Amino acid sequence: MKKKKAYNVAVIGVGVVGQMMLRILKERNFPIKNLRVFARSARQIQVDGISYDVQVISPEGFEGVDIALFAGTEGEKGASVTFAGEAVKRGAIVIDNGADFRMDPDVPLVVPEVNPKDAKKYRKKGIIANPNCSTIQMVVALWPIHKVVKIKRVVVSSYQAASGAGRGTVEQLFKETKEILDAGCRMPALPAGRQEAGRIEPESCILNHESKILPKQIAFNVLPHIGSFGESDYTSEEWKMVRETHKIMHSDKIKISATTVRVPVRTGHAEAIYIETKKDFSLDQLRELLKNSAGIELIDDPKNNLYPLPIEAEDKDAVFVGRIRKDPYVKNAFWLWVVSDNLRKGAALNAVQIAELLIAKK
Amino acid sequence: MKKKKAYNVAVIGVGVVGQMMLRILKERNFPIKNLRVFARSARQIQVDGISYDVQVISPEGFEGVDIALFAGTEGEKGASVTFAGEAVKRGAIVIDNGADFRMDPDVPLVVPEVNPKDAKKYRKKGIIANPNCSTIQMVVALWPIHKVVKIKRVVVSSYQAASGAGRGTVEQLFKETKEILDAGCRMPALPAGRQEAGRIEPESCILNHESKILPKQIAFNVLPHIGSFGESDYTSEEWKMVRETHKIMHSDKIKISATTVRVPVRTGHAEAIYIETKKDFSLDQLRELLKNSAGIELIDDPKNNLYPLPIEAEDKDAVFVGRIRKDPYVKNAFWLWVVSDNLRKGAALNAVQIAELLIAKK
Repeated sequence: MKKKKAYNVAVIGVGVVGQMMLRILKERNFPIKNLRVFARSARQIQVDGISYDVQVISPEGFEGVDIALFAGTEGEKGASVTFAGEAVKRGAIVIDNGADFRMDPDVPLVVPEVNPKDAKKYRKKGIIANPNCSTIQMVVALWPIHKVVKIKRVVVSSYQAASGAGRGTVEQLFKETKEILDAGCRMPALPAGRQEAGRIEPESCILNHESKILPKQIAFNVLPHIGSFGESDYTSEEWKMVRETHKIMHSDKIKISATTVRVPVRTGHAEAIYIETKKDFSLDQLRELLKNSAGIELIDDPKNNLYPLPIEAEDKDAVFVGRIRKDPYVKNAFWLWVVSDNLRKGAALNAVQIAELLIAKK
Repeated sequence: MKKKKAYNVAVIGVGVVGQMMLRILKERNFPIKNLRVFARSARQIQVDGISYDVQVISPEGFEGVDIALFAGTEGEKGASVTFAGEAVKRGAIVIDNGADFRMDPDVPLVVPEVNPKDAKKYRKKGIIANPNCSTIQMVVALWPIHKVVKIKRVVVSSYQAASGAGRGTVEQLFKETKEILDAGCRMPALPAGRQEAGRIEPESCILNHESKILPKQIAFNVLPHIGSFGESDYTSEEWKMVRETHKIMHSDKIKISATTVRVPVRTGHAEAIYIETKKDFSLDQLRELLKNSAGIELIDDPKNNLYPLPIEAEDKDAVFVGRIRKDPYVKNAFWLWVVSDNLRKGAALNAVQIAELLIAKK
C-alpha cells in the first residue's frame, strides 16, 4: 500500500461495531484525509458528540477510498459480500469484521499481536479479515504461551456478552430485565420471617416474548447457543474458536474444543480457558511472560480479590488475564480466565489496529 | 434406623434452603409425625401458605427427633458444628447440607442416585453430609457414564446462580439490577440514527456499593470467585467439585479441575463439563444411557433449539443434560451441558432423598 500523510477511510455499518470504529479512529488519531460512513439508509448520527453524515452504500461511493472498514453484520451475510469487491476494484483495501471471508485461504485473518505479517498478504483479494470476538481475546492470551512452550490442547468455555450479537440483543437484555423486575420476580423462596401468604411463583422470572433476537430469554439466564448449530452439534461460534485460531496461529495441530455461552452481561466476554502445553512452565514464568506480552494486562491477585471482570473491561483496550492456575493432577496443564471488551479488542479496535499495520512506516 | 410409620423431623435453618426443605418434605409426603423448625430466633413463617412456628435452636429441642435436616449456612460454620452432636446424642440422625462435615472420613457424603449404600454408614458420627450444589448435579450426570466407560478426567466451568450463596445474594442481584436500570445504563454505544449528543458512559453500568455480600457486583457481570481462595489459587468451591466428587464416586483417580463462576441468574446452576473416558462410546449410546439414568432428564435437540436452561430448570427436580458432543480431535472425550435447580437437587431435595433412603422399607 502506498504510504501517504493521510488516508481516505470508509466505515461501512453504524451498529455497535461501526460506531465503535468511528470512536476508535478518533481516539487513536488515525491519519484521515476524508472519512465516509456508509449504511443501508442515509441519516445523520452522532458519536461522542461528533456528527457524521451516513450515506447510502453504493459501488461508486468507494471511489478514491484507501481503506474500507466493514463493521460486519451479526447472523447474516455482511455488506462485504456485495461491496468488498467493488471497493477493492476501486483501489481500496478492505478490512472486514464480518465472518464471510475469514476462512478464505486468499484472505489473511489477522490479530496484530499474533500474526501482524499476515496483514501484508492481502493482495490476492484485497481483503483482510478481522476474527471473531471470542477468538481474538483467546489468541492474544495463547500466542505468547504457544511461542515458548507450544500449546497442544485447548478446552474453553465462554461467558459472552449481549453486545456481541449486536444492538438489538442488548436491547433485548434490558427490556427483558425490566419486565422481570416489573413483574415482581425476586426470591426463589419466601423471605424468612415475613407473614406473606402463598408463594412467589418462579415462573414469574420467565417471559414469553413473541419476537426475540436471541432464540431464548437472556435476562437472568445463560444460553448455551451462539450462532447456529452445525457440524457435530457444535455451534458456528464454537467452530470459529477452533478454525480461526488454527488459521491465525498457523497451526491446525492444536486440539481445540469449545462450549460458547451467552450470559446477561452488556459488554465484555469472559473465557475459562484450559490449556495443555508441550513443555512445562512455572506459574511465575507464565505470569511474567503474560505481563510483558503485547495487548495483555495481567490482573491476578486472588488474595486481594483481583481478577478480570466484564464490567471493568468495558471500554478498555486490553485483553485481561487472571486466575492463572495449574491443574493439580495433569502435567503442563493450566487455566486462564480471559476477559476483554468484545466491541473493542474483539471487533473495532482490532480492525483499526490492522489498518495501522497497513500504514506503518516500516 | 428403627423403621416407623412416621418420624419426628427437625429442620434447622429457614433461609432459602431451609424453606425449600419444608416445601419438599410436604411435596413428597414425607411421613412426619412431628415437625420442628429451628433457627437462631423465634418467629412464625409461611411457606406455600402453610404456617410454621420457628423455635430458637437448643440442645434440648432435639429430644425425640429421629431425623434432623440442617440447611447449612453459606460462608460460615453452620449450626451443625454446634448442634449436630447434641442431636445425635439424643438419638437423631443428622443430614447436614453445610460443608463442615463433608470431608470427614467418618461421615458419608451421599447423592442417592450415585452412592445410596453409603447412607447406611452414618453410625460412627450419626451424620450424613449433603454435597455442594455444583458437585451434586455433576456427579448425577457423570456416574452412569463412569459405571460403563470409566471417567479418567474432568475439566469443568460453572455458571452458578445467585441463590447458591443464599437469600442475601439474590437480593444483591435484584437490588443492583434495579439500580443500574434506574441509572439509565443501556447501550454500549449510541443507538444508531438518533440525534443525541454525548455518549452514554459505560461507567453507569458499574455500581459502588458500600456493603455487599458477594465480593463484587453481580448484576450484568460474571464473577470468577465462589467461596474463598485457597490451595494453588483455586477457590473452596473449585476444590469441593474435585474432592467431593472423589469421595462420592469412590475414586480419587479421576483427574478433575474446575473454574467456578457466579452469573446473574436467580436459581439454576449450569456447568460446561468436558470429560475423557477410558473406553469409547457413541453419542447415541451416551444419550440412551443418560436418558435412562436416575435423576436425569435429557434435553438435547439443538436443531429445535432445545437444551437445558437455568430459568427452565428452576423449581424442577431433575438434573438436565444436553449439548452432548464429542471432541472433534481427542478420542473418548465429550462435552455435557448440565443444569439443575441448586436449591432443590443441589440442596434441599437431595437432603430429603437421603432421609427417604434412611426410612426405606428394604
